[in-house]
Amino acid sequence: MNVLWIFAHPEQRSLNAALRDDGVRELRRLGHDVCESDLYAMKWKAVLDGDDVRQDPADRLLVGPAQERAYKSGELSADVRAEQDKLRWAEAVVFHFPLWWHGPPAILKGWFDRVLTQGFGFGVKDGDGRTLRYGEGALSGRRALLVTSVGARERTFGPRGLHGHIDDVLFSLLHGAFWYTGMAALPPFVVYGADRLTVADQAAVSERFRARLRTLPTAAPIPYRYESGGDYDENRVLRPEIEPGLSGLAVHRRSR
Amino acid sequence: MNVLWIFAHPEQRSLNAALRDDGVRELRRLGHDVCESDLYAMKWKAVLDGDDVRQDPADRLLVGPAQERAYKSGELSADVRAEQDKLRWAEAVVFHFPLWWHGPPAILKGWFDRVLTQGFGFGVKDGDGRTLRYGEGALSGRRALLVTSVGARERTFGPRGLHGHIDDVLFSLLHGAFWYTGMAALPPFVVYGADRLTVADQAAVSERFRARLRTLPTAAPIPYRYESGGDYDENRVLRPEIEPGLSGLAVHRRSR
Repeated sequence: MNVLWIFAHPEQRSLNAALRDDGVRELRRLGHDVCESDLYAMKWKAVLDGDDVRQDPADRLLVGPAQERAYKSGELSADVRAEQDKLRWAEAVVFHFPLWWHGPPAILKGWFDRVLTQGFGFGVKDGDGRTLRYGEGALSGRRALLVTSVGARERTFGPRGLHGHIDDVLFSLLHGAFWYTGMAALPPFVVYGADRLTVADQAAVSERFRARLRTLPTAAPIPYRYESGGDYDENRVLRPEIEPGLSGLAVHRRSR
Repeated sequence: MNVLWIFAHPEQRSLNAALRDDGVRELRRLGHDVCESDLYAMKWKAVLDGDDVRQDPADRLLVGPAQERAYKSGELSADVRAEQDKLRWAEAVVFHFPLWWHGPPAILKGWFDRVLTQGFGFGVKDGDGRTLRYGEGALSGRRALLVTSVGARERTFGPRGLHGHIDDVLFSLLHGAFWYTGMAALPPFVVYGADRLTVADQAAVSERFRARLRTLPTAAPIPYRYESGGDYDENRVLRPEIEPGLSGLAVHRRSR
């Protein structure tokens, strides 16, 4: 497979960088092509502004429409176009970052803000004017694997853990970004207690990680519901007969 | 009250900028002191890196410990120290931004990453070495109001809406950042259908917004559970007798 590995950690001597090195090596050993976007090493511009879309400062910046206009006329800034080209090439995308304030570091958040432009990442329509998202869209057919590390122990991110269930804490990325743009979100790979790992722990994590990467082409994605699959009504609300009476983010997965 | 207004929108002629102008004026009219951090206007540095903590590039950057060392020795970069001073001064903080990919724009995410350092925003301990967080911490006693805008309609962010319930989508900020650092999270103010508002709609939103701001000192916060309140066991998991059998992020609110 063609694999794009997006890495967002400021320290090349970190646990995450070591896992990235191991992971990229393992994927290549298995015959995959790997392209890396090391956002800190690239000095990736995090902040979406008028420069991204060659906006005349005298004009009012309407972010989405300005993105779509620049996207369609080929006038997006070169760094954004390069990332979009990598996504078109990729069959799987690894998003690898430490979890900071229960989200991606700003440099990676800015990758989403800047690269997934209107007309490419959202506001994508088919020939009949129907919006394509949540299982359909420009990136459909691709797989996305989220890899992250947290200092806390696994139980504190469990279904009733203090920090919230990890599936819910990561929902904005897994469902709101990956699945939204059409990518099948794989179960995330999370390193817990990352501050406390011994050398032996790290070796075990790396082994577990390489085993997970070997399943990248075959692992079953999280079974989020398709927007167009009939589970939501005309107001985009889950139909009453599906998971009746329940709410919470888990209702957006198809039942076992 | 002393109110810090943190604003993160790239366009000063946007709906959000107009709401910010209205809101700041209203708070001042009511006799509050308002300090603004307009992150785009300040050209706020979004990306946390070794420069924040005056890290020698020859040393390995361990983010948390490096932040805490720099925090305690007064060596954090000047822009970060200025924001921490504003937070100490503030009795209420407004976080105002458009919702991009179901989260804050990168420039605001970077404000959390850089300002809420170890020793200040997390890893804060009392005299007995107990970690203070979730209702306790450096920012306890303060109120936090999240103000955001989305293009989607309100029902799609309802309890069973396609995008996920807004309370859950914003949980990482409301619970994972505001409440984590000790701030009482107020119910967020969300402008739905922001792309489609008529002039009359905008006037109605502004009126509703000013009414909400008048309740800033008195509105009941979201009743998240205190970590130290006895609801969680020694593994930081909700005790079985509380919301028995339930999971989902709503279990972290105290019952009515």
